[in-house]
Amino acid sequence: MPLAAHARPTLERRLAEAADLVTVALDELLPRAEGPEQRLTEAMRYAALGPGKRLRPYFALEAGRLFDVEERSVLRAACALECIHAYSLVHDDLPAMDDDAHRRGRPTVHRQYDEATAILVGDALQTAAFEIMAHPDTHEDGEVRAELVMRLARAAGAQGMAGGQMIDIVGAHGDLGQAARMHRMKTGALIAFAFEIPLIIAQPEEGARHALKAFAQDLGLAYQIVDDLLHSQAAPGLTGKAASKKSGYVALLGPGAARERIELLSQQCKAHLDIFGEDAQFLRESVDFVLNRPA
Amino acid sequence: MPLAAHARPTLERRLAEAADLVTVALDELLPRAEGPEQRLTEAMRYAALGPGKRLRPYFALEAGRLFDVEERSVLRAACALECIHAYSLVHDDLPAMDDDAHRRGRPTVHRQYDEATAILVGDALQTAAFEIMAHPDTHEDGEVRAELVMRLARAAGAQGMAGGQMIDIVGAHGDLGQAARMHRMKTGALIAFAFEIPLIIAQPEEGARHALKAFAQDLGLAYQIVDDLLHSQAAPGLTGKAASKKSGYVALLGPGAARERIELLSQQCKAHLDIFGEDAQFLRESVDFVLNRPA
Repeated sequence: MPLAAHARPTLERRLAEAADLVTVALDELLPRAEGPEQRLTEAMRYAALGPGKRLRPYFALEAGRLFDVEERSVLRAACALECIHAYSLVHDDLPAMDDDAHRRGRPTVHRQYDEATAILVGDALQTAAFEIMAHPDTHEDGEVRAELVMRLARAAGAQGMAGGQMIDIVGAHGDLGQAARMHRMKTGALIAFAFEIPLIIAQPEEGARHALKAFAQDLGLAYQIVDDLLHSQAAPGLTGKAASKKSGYVALLGPGAARERIELLSQQCKAHLDIFGEDAQFLRESVDFVLNRPA
Repeated sequence: MPLAAHARPTLERRLAEAADLVTVALDELLPRAEGPEQRLTEAMRYAALGPGKRLRPYFALEAGRLFDVEERSVLRAACALECIHAYSLVHDDLPAMDDDAHRRGRPTVHRQYDEATAILVGDALQTAAFEIMAHPDTHEDGEVRAELVMRLARAAGAQGMAGGQMIDIVGAHGDLGQAARMHRMKTGALIAFAFEIPLIIAQPEEGARHALKAFAQDLGLAYQIVDDLLHSQAAPGLTGKAASKKSGYVALLGPGAARERIELLSQQCKAHLDIFGEDAQFLRESVDFVLNRPA
């Protein structure tokens, strides 16, 4: 065996491998149609199989490696999670929401197809998420599948992502506590669910469970502050209400204190992983990767 | 006890009781919020708790009485189904879809609130459906809950309701075969799922299973032809493409042949129920009720 095969792969390689795994699996899992509903299934594939970091599925897969679980189970659950993420992007881009024309260098779904199709694409991607999750291939135990469905629904619904999106639209996140709650619902809940997947499947002891949950929570918050920072740098002219709406934490804390908070959360994140030792090295590295990402 | 208490309740009474049961249960099951996401949970309640026949939940409950199953299980599953139905109405009413200003005598959700809220309401009602279904209170057996989730997702997704909606928008239902397929997906799949609920929970023998499935299929088709007939009567001036889009069967068959087909399907429906004897009397009566309903 050549030496290179023994060398530890880089995080970039690991991320790329996970992204490929998820894209191939999603390609198999998403419906194909021959009939006149083909427009819908094609547009679903356009939305879900396009370029994307697949960060949430990566977290699920990487965290899954900390436990003795079948990768196939984690992968299918991660695909379901990615469908929810993809649906939320399609609907967020709609004219009545953020009215975005482009995403990741391509026209958004309502620009590439039309608005009615984009609404249906988001709807059907959400449905596909729960169909994938509940299917017997995801896990042999129905209790596990039902639990995965219920937790994903809680993360995505009115008390999670959709509720956070509503708060964002209403604009009721004027102080730090409100902004943190909004972000925890809008973005944090789905990121946290990525780490819940292996916990639900592996049912580890309390220490590991607690550590991974705390990691997910701090990472989700740091992720969002970075997002705010990137937005505020992209739109430096915004002030007052527009700035507060577009870049919650940064407008409230100032960029210097926001960066300090990210650094603190980053250290906390890595400390939470101590319990897993060397096994969590990639998760540890991914904290810096995620928090130092480019716009 | 007065004589009246022994008298057999009428179908109308039975329908009203089921509707009340479902509305009260939904009121308990749908999320409430105190925070700024309250706008979303209130609008979800506006959409799901307003006036409605609750026909799909009624079918689930009435069919459930043919078997030895807990009403609580069927009721929760029926509430999940009703959430899917409610979400589909909210999104169908959107400006980019049917652009309807009123539904059942009240402003549609995007008129009462706004378009962004209506998109989120539909999204979160769909999520709520799967959360309700997967919750341990629905059934003690996780296999049953996961199966209910998966079947509901199939009925609602790209190969069911959402796919049928896409076909309707594309307008690819020019001949009877295509129109039948479109309706089977768009409307029939959710009606059929109402009858699947007790089948999944009770796991009856093949004869009963087959009879109830055949009943659901014929009833769904007849329901849709009646819908077409009501639409064509409401808009007698439509001709050509507009008429074919708005009133598939009637435009293709003519109103006389459409009525004959409804009568034939109605007889078939009742014949399918012979196996259940007197127990299915209300289901038998509900065929006429559903097919003779006013616009």
